[in-house]
Amino acid sequence: MKVAFIGLGVMGYPMAGHMVAAGHDVTVFNRTAARAEAWVNEYGGRAAQTPRDAASGADCVMVCVGNDDDVRSVVLGESGALAGMSTGSVLVDHTTASAELARELGAAAGESDIAFLDAPVSGGQAGAVNGALTVMVGGAQGDFDRAEPVIAAYAQRTRLIGPVGAGQLTKMVNQVCIAGLLQALSEGVHFAARAGLDEAAVFDVISKGAAQSWQLENRANTMASGEFDFGFAVDWMRKDLGIVLDEARRNGAQLPVTALVDSFYSDVQRAGGNRWDTSSLITRLKEQD
Amino acid sequence: MKVAFIGLGVMGYPMAGHMVAAGHDVTVFNRTAARAEAWVNEYGGRAAQTPRDAASGADCVMVCVGNDDDVRSVVLGESGALAGMSTGSVLVDHTTASAELARELGAAAGESDIAFLDAPVSGGQAGAVNGALTVMVGGAQGDFDRAEPVIAAYAQRTRLIGPVGAGQLTKMVNQVCIAGLLQALSEGVHFAARAGLDEAAVFDVISKGAAQSWQLENRANTMASGEFDFGFAVDWMRKDLGIVLDEARRNGAQLPVTALVDSFYSDVQRAGGNRWDTSSLITRLKEQD
Repeated sequence: MKVAFIGLGVMGYPMAGHMVAAGHDVTVFNRTAARAEAWVNEYGGRAAQTPRDAASGADCVMVCVGNDDDVRSVVLGESGALAGMSTGSVLVDHTTASAELARELGAAAGESDIAFLDAPVSGGQAGAVNGALTVMVGGAQGDFDRAEPVIAAYAQRTRLIGPVGAGQLTKMVNQVCIAGLLQALSEGVHFAARAGLDEAAVFDVISKGAAQSWQLENRANTMASGEFDFGFAVDWMRKDLGIVLDEARRNGAQLPVTALVDSFYSDVQRAGGNRWDTSSLITRLKEQD
Repeated sequence: MKVAFIGLGVMGYPMAGHMVAAGHDVTVFNRTAARAEAWVNEYGGRAAQTPRDAASGADCVMVCVGNDDDVRSVVLGESGALAGMSTGSVLVDHTTASAELARELGAAAGESDIAFLDAPVSGGQAGAVNGALTVMVGGAQGDFDRAEPVIAAYAQRTRLIGPVGAGQLTKMVNQVCIAGLLQALSEGVHFAARAGLDEAAVFDVISKGAAQSWQLENRANTMASGEFDFGFAVDWMRKDLGIVLDEARRNGAQLPVTALVDSFYSDVQRAGGNRWDTSSLITRLKEQD
């Protein structure tokens, strides 16, 4: 199938590579052209000069960039992807962005009878490299059915949740669950240290019961030893929590701990932790050790 | 082996039963004598009139009661368990209590050359009934080695973490991790409802990634449907969090979200939720739906 991938960041670069491996005819676009050239050297395929050129003639166009405005800049306007796409093709946005942007793009695509799916991912850089991402999708069932086999090149799980916007809203639920969970784990790890416990033994024994979590199993020991130079960066989490808190103001959801943890992450940023893994929340507490 | 079990509550009643099934010679004591008689009718063994009589001649004496003062009332004093125990026997306290109580009992037992282990459990009533509890132990290795085969009658995992008090401190870490995690999950489930999402689909897709937790897998759907008539009661969680926050005042740990969630649980109590499962934290948020 003829496909395009726009945005070759830490996620998009390997995702687009998996599409080549799956046998698709892939054209890429990246704002920094040198990275697109490196991608072509590594995987084959072609690099286009504009999102419009990349999307021209493609059955399916994937976008994975930074934030709402980045998405608008590569999708809308004269040189945007939509301008190059044909009736009946599908635009899939993998960026974690607002539900409002998803509805805006869905409407813009609809004017040209182009299908749109908002499809944020989870699984991080490792999931992208291993082709094992989880994809949360909003859109129409028929459009989902056409895009899902293409998405499968880099996804382990792809699920349609509801209409356009539902993918972004589901990703927001995911981030809400993670933010407070990481603060709880931070307090647990910090308490264990202050109590003088053998932390590895504690994490092992409590990880089999009601306190169990992916974060406990995968981050407690690195939190205890102060390793944060990996994983999902604090800056990205703050971007996502900003989207969540904006949406909560609109839908009336009460998120007291999510809002508090967002402010705690700003403390981590002030301490220079912009690129640290989200588990670095514990550093705010450790300062007093 | 000759053993005693003191405290036949929802946990102790089935735990003592498993000791009979494991072939031990079990004598029980319970403050409300009728419940001890019911236990004898169900399992065999014997019921004693005082903790001292129950413990007399036992190699291993288990206690599982309500709080610090309840433990003191059955262990210390003229009719307490220690008064009936012999040199070389082992006292095991399964009550979730303070680390200070553990040290106090360890010292009192030591005066008579009786071994002491603090050994709070997790796994809830279901774990007690199924003999699948997790036991977090503080004490000396040699004492642990003698008691562990007896504890195995009702435990799936038993782990020595450190000296006397370490079992209680580990249980505190467990409760800290759970409290904030449940608030995060409450906010996620609440947000999903406000956003109009298909909640079951959302929980399914996010439960495979970084937001995964035992609570998400086992409580998200009942939280969404407002079912709380089961599980670990809010009153018990508040007792445990009181112990945690007292200890944190002593060891200097900073637990901002744990303290906040403790106050949220007081809201749930005020709304009549004393006996609801801890996942009922979400009811504070749902009131505004």
